[in-house]
Amino acid sequence: MSGGRLAVVGLGPGDLRYLTPEAETALAAADALYGYGPYLDRVAPRAGQRRYPSDNREEVARAAAALGDAAQGASVAMVCGGDPGVFAMAAAICEQIEQGPASWRTLDVVFIPGITAMLAVAAKIGAPLGHDFCALSLSDNLKPWSLIERRLDAAASAGFVIALYNPVSRARPWQFGNAVERLRRHLPETTPVVFGRAVGRPDEHVSVTRLGEADATPADMATLVIVGTRQTRIIQRPGRSPFVYTPRAAAEVSA
Amino acid sequence: MSGGRLAVVGLGPGDLRYLTPEAETALAAADALYGYGPYLDRVAPRAGQRRYPSDNREEVARAAAALGDAAQGASVAMVCGGDPGVFAMAAAICEQIEQGPASWRTLDVVFIPGITAMLAVAAKIGAPLGHDFCALSLSDNLKPWSLIERRLDAAASAGFVIALYNPVSRARPWQFGNAVERLRRHLPETTPVVFGRAVGRPDEHVSVTRLGEADATPADMATLVIVGTRQTRIIQRPGRSPFVYTPRAAAEVSA
Repeated sequence: MSGGRLAVVGLGPGDLRYLTPEAETALAAADALYGYGPYLDRVAPRAGQRRYPSDNREEVARAAAALGDAAQGASVAMVCGGDPGVFAMAAAICEQIEQGPASWRTLDVVFIPGITAMLAVAAKIGAPLGHDFCALSLSDNLKPWSLIERRLDAAASAGFVIALYNPVSRARPWQFGNAVERLRRHLPETTPVVFGRAVGRPDEHVSVTRLGEADATPADMATLVIVGTRQTRIIQRPGRSPFVYTPRAAAEVSA
Repeated sequence: MSGGRLAVVGLGPGDLRYLTPEAETALAAADALYGYGPYLDRVAPRAGQRRYPSDNREEVARAAAALGDAAQGASVAMVCGGDPGVFAMAAAICEQIEQGPASWRTLDVVFIPGITAMLAVAAKIGAPLGHDFCALSLSDNLKPWSLIERRLDAAASAGFVIALYNPVSRARPWQFGNAVERLRRHLPETTPVVFGRAVGRPDEHVSVTRLGEADATPADMATLVIVGTRQTRIIQRPGRSPFVYTPRAAAEVSA
């Protein structure tokens, strides 16, 4: 058994007000930090702690490098934004553990949860996830677009609130508009839609629109979109920003 | 505008290693704490801070009492396990804000996210939520069972990982077995199923089984169940507990 260790740590979104004590302890104990550069930048440097920032879309190489370092005996932390298990590094690490050298399967590997973007965005605007919901990545890098459409159809027609991760990137300019159009087949144009960008950062912006105009709202890779159901409601609040929530109760007709 | 304030605070699961700095600050600032008794018990008493524990299934009365207290000018915290927006108090608070006195709609109300059970359970076992997933409550107190079945059908046939909240209670003894049977119509008996109970507490227990035997595993209201997809895999680790993960990539046939 190796003496090394890998902790796959969720920072939560934006600044460190979302960082749990468990995550903080794991970061402090690490000899080496790996992660996407902008996430590593959120962690204060510490003397003697090695740092290996990498680019986006280098998940496989990053996972293998961190596991290799731990297999040499180091205490390693892989730093993720949000939660490591939600469209982040935990699955890539598991893939490498399964496919890599047998010694990686006896390593001490732990996953430390964090506040994922949909929870942070929902909290900023009320309770849009107040009923059954799903989380769906609109990136078709690792699955065909036809499967994403099938999942949009299934979720919207069955009455799930839908949290859309990775709605837009420079390489994927049309997918979000296509998804909104697809959802209009199932949901009224008045369905509330929440856009949350850069939550917890100085440029945080959360806004509400309706499905009929949702494709006109700018979105990027830092945006999380929540599409309501037929039950989702907007509460106007005099002198304050509105709340959006999905009631706890649903009747059969809701779906 | 009233001088009062209501913070709806997520503690995360189990002990306080999951409590974020933002949540800790809100709890410290409160004049009064409301919540389900066992959740309040996790927050250390502070001199001068009033406490109002209530029973389970008293969500409406608890929400109204906290809003009324804040409307009188108090700084109030509503304490929730996990995340307040996921099958917890945030939606009940919004319902009361919409239906209650107009003065409640001008109150300063904030929601503070927490680690919800599915993230904590997933982290204990690897990355079962590594692909698109949904969260579904099996409680049919506020929705008909036929709608739950429709959602199980939709989610399983479209290839979502399924996190089941509230699988069993004393008043709902048959629902979980029925749900497992329903899922077997869509998924192989070998599909991995994760049971996570009391994560973060001394009696924490996380185990893995297969869909064919899932209804034989004891579950209760403190249990969160994650049902995988056709792609979800179990990694055996010599001398260590196995990991369960859902790969990031999916082909059309997956659904």
